[in-house]
Amino acid sequence: MAFKVISSTQNTYIKELTLLKEKSRARKKSGQFLIEGAREISLALKGRYKIEAILFYPELLSEETLKELIGDFNNCIEVSKDVYQKLAHRDTTEGVLAVAKNKVHALKSVSIESDTPLILVAEAPEKPGNIGALLRTADAANVDLIIIANPKTDLYNPNIIRSSVGCIFTRQIAMGSTTEIISFLKAKNINIYCAALQASVNYHTQDFTKPTALVVGTEATGLSQEWRDAATENIIIPMQGEIDSMNVSVAAGILIFEAKRQRNFK
Amino acid sequence: MAFKVISSTQNTYIKELTLLKEKSRARKKSGQFLIEGAREISLALKGRYKIEAILFYPELLSEETLKELIGDFNNCIEVSKDVYQKLAHRDTTEGVLAVAKNKVHALKSVSIESDTPLILVAEAPEKPGNIGALLRTADAANVDLIIIANPKTDLYNPNIIRSSVGCIFTRQIAMGSTTEIISFLKAKNINIYCAALQASVNYHTQDFTKPTALVVGTEATGLSQEWRDAATENIIIPMQGEIDSMNVSVAAGILIFEAKRQRNFK
Repeated sequence: MAFKVISSTQNTYIKELTLLKEKSRARKKSGQFLIEGAREISLALKGRYKIEAILFYPELLSEETLKELIGDFNNCIEVSKDVYQKLAHRDTTEGVLAVAKNKVHALKSVSIESDTPLILVAEAPEKPGNIGALLRTADAANVDLIIIANPKTDLYNPNIIRSSVGCIFTRQIAMGSTTEIISFLKAKNINIYCAALQASVNYHTQDFTKPTALVVGTEATGLSQEWRDAATENIIIPMQGEIDSMNVSVAAGILIFEAKRQRNFK
Repeated sequence: MAFKVISSTQNTYIKELTLLKEKSRARKKSGQFLIEGAREISLALKGRYKIEAILFYPELLSEETLKELIGDFNNCIEVSKDVYQKLAHRDTTEGVLAVAKNKVHALKSVSIESDTPLILVAEAPEKPGNIGALLRTADAANVDLIIIANPKTDLYNPNIIRSSVGCIFTRQIAMGSTTEIISFLKAKNINIYCAALQASVNYHTQDFTKPTALVVGTEATGLSQEWRDAATENIIIPMQGEIDSMNVSVAAGILIFEAKRQRNFK
């Protein structure tokens, strides 16, 4: 097959893509973002993200593997080593990048099929690595929905995509203000369990088999008063060590899998 | 109080300390390492680590705070901004560093007081951030012992200390080869539960109220055959997503807190 070839990092299109990699503002303005790696791209395709272009560096990715990944998709561009290394983080391993179209993560377009949904809410998470780990855990537990309240970073930050190992594409994700999300959950009669260090009720004493939202805040400041006031119950993971804190993705994992256990992993 | 002052990064002692910060080999050779930050140093003191010197930069840490932290300890050295920034990672926040003496983490010096100990074993963990998160979770759950099998990094890597937020000093930690550790656990009649993706037994069906070691491997390769063969039971955290993996510290958190739940957090 013959491909369009771009070998200069000074090419206008490549400069635009570099901005997508580096600047949240460029991603927001264009509604596009970059996906690096075959696994991540295949999960994005499965999650019905629209792919606009594929860039590949043939020394790292054979035409055959490319074909397996994208089938008949026809906007493939062969790039030089320089161009690939400019756009990729793992610049010596994957050999393939996609230019994809953002989804809109509005609460109003969320569809929940289960009668007893399990929802993870994270308020204002900051570190891409933590967000990625939350998304991985939510994927493993097959939660119905992830909601990010008062987001601090854009979801398509390359570090989030990378640390989620592509799980960002596999789950329904919504974003909104804390106020909007609380209204949304209350309108649907979903119980709200807020993880709070000030709480006195142990998490494992609660019934998570009903429609359940598990809400976690940041390690530094915890959940806002608004969440704690709106809670069906504020819950605590009892800690008995010297340090009264836990990584947010570990705390979320403990809560989500307690819910899964109560639900017999159904 | 009058302190010894060092203001040059070319000072021989400061050069030695720079090596302690940067080189695992230098830490091993001298049996010393650096601790950065007031909280971390106070946890090390509580954990009975021997502190050999304290370095502080007075613009960031007042003499009063220093006094609160270390009491009558007398080998305090005032350093310049240049020296502090050379030695510290968070070079604009803490203002205090300690030179501490390694502990020996031999299995044979482990003491277990509980009749039903809960032990976390991690085989060959590599990423300092994951090791730090494991140590934090183990601290929160007040486990009796953490064992690192076939260690790949030295424990006193500054990134491990930092990501553990000092929890490295609060728990009993032992290191050894997988073979040694299996003998140790079997000799003490401690049940061995190995987290393995190949397993068919769900983790929550097992009785973790007896003497229990929970064993986790790396995300990339999982646990070695030697561990899986030695297991009382190989267990799995059921995953129902697109990706069949979980962050190792999240997986460990889920297992440890299931054990805590079964033990009523006693």
